[in-house]
Amino acid sequence: MSDSDKNHVLRELALVLAERKKASPESSYVASLHHKGLNKILEKVGEECTETIIAAKDAERSGSLDELVSETADLWFHSLVMLSHLGGHPDQILAELARRFGLSGHDEKASRDTP
Amino acid sequence: MSDSDKNHVLRELALVLAERKKASPESSYVASLHHKGLNKILEKVGEECTETIIAAKDAERSGSLDELVSETADLWFHSLVMLSHLGGHPDQILAELARRFGLSGHDEKASRDTP
Amino acid sequence: MSDSDKNHVLRELALVLAERKKASPESSYVASLHHKGLNKILEKVGEECTETIIAAKDAERSGSLDELVSETADLWFHSLVMLSHLGGHPDQILAELARRFGLSGHDEKASRDTP
Amino acid sequence: MSDSDKNHVLRELALVLAERKKASPESSYVASLHHKGLNKILEKVGEECTETIIAAKDAERSGSLDELVSETADLWFHSLVMLSHLGGHPDQILAELARRFGLSGHDEKASRDTP
Repeated sequence: MSDSDKNHVLRELALVLAERKKASPESSYVASLHHKGLNKILEKVGEECTETIIAAKDAERSGSLDELVSETADLWFHSLVMLSHLGGHPDQILAELARRFGLSGHDEKASRDTP
Repeated sequence: MSDSDKNHVLRELALVLAERKKASPESSYVASLHHKGLNKILEKVGEECTETIIAAKDAERSGSLDELVSETADLWFHSLVMLSHLGGHPDQILAELARRFGLSGHDEKASRDTP
Repeated sequence: MSDSDKNHVLRELALVLAERKKASPESSYVASLHHKGLNKILEKVGEECTETIIAAKDAERSGSLDELVSETADLWFHSLVMLSHLGGHPDQILAELARRFGLSGHDEKASRDTP
Repeated sequence: MSDSDKNHVLRELALVLAERKKASPESSYVASLHHKGLNKILEKVGEECTETIIAAKDAERSGSLDELVSETADLWFHSLVMLSHLGGHPDQILAELARRFGLSGHDEKASRDTP
């Protein structure tokens, strides 16, 4: 995957999550989470956070990031399902991060800043 | 912020995090976290996850997502500091999410899919 | 269960946990946790903590403590399995709490203080 | 502290927590937690759980349980403040543990079982 390809991952993922939210509980994992409700989704967010912390401690020793990247992706994914369940969108998180760090998000600025 | 502007937020944020990792502990919050070490960073990841879960339960009642978006941004931000501390990059998380969901990440596909 | 009966629950539980630590993984849940190792035990501690927090938010609304008591018992139980896995004992936690709060632990003092 | 002294630690602690719940927020840490409300108390429960998990991973390497015992005591203590805030009592947790494990809690049985 080229650098430019990664830019749209979160937006594409948001589309997938929106589709699966409307699907039947039997048809997908995401649909089953929505069917089980917010508490079950939050339990998964907490579980994945714990697994991320454990993986980080193991990565500190082993030097390998594979497990940590996998667990962090799980954490982000389930936090997006949570946001979707309550009517939110990943763009709201990105906008909040941009606001805090004074990031423009402009393609031009990103290009200029890249070493 | 327009839709296209949000695409590069994580990449810009990664640049900011990489710069601040090299800064003196007094100069920024991120630098002070790196100076305190992995355990302190992981404590923050866990704290922000708990605050996200509490905010989600409150959002369920109030219907307002403001606090939840803010806490989820905190959670993502501190997980990126964790990844940076151990030598990782947000692109690794995005690539993992893309792989799992069969997302191309292509600008063209994203454009086609956007309603 | 009378008041005096509850005093020995943690000590009896410690005996049960010590026995099951030596059992075969197929014979009990505790034995299977020890067999799976520390990471699995810590995942359970994190899960039960998340479920405790969610149950507390629900108890705040419902006024019922049943679920909260059940989840907190789960949290304490798995933290005792964790301690047992690493060679510790519940008495160490009780001694630490007594030290911090200046508690004697004496039956006489407990009787005097009870209204 | 002798073995028999530890039996009453949780009951004495419950008395201390009940007294401090009624105190002014400036007078004690527990009173200030109650004044700040349930969300702040739950944040502390989550924080202490994260610190317990990190301490367990460090104990796995170092062989020392000191930090782990201290963090687990913190976790139990804050979960008791949570229970007190919502009108519960440590005895409810002990009764639930006794029920699950078929523990009598009787002094006689505890004495018989102790090696």
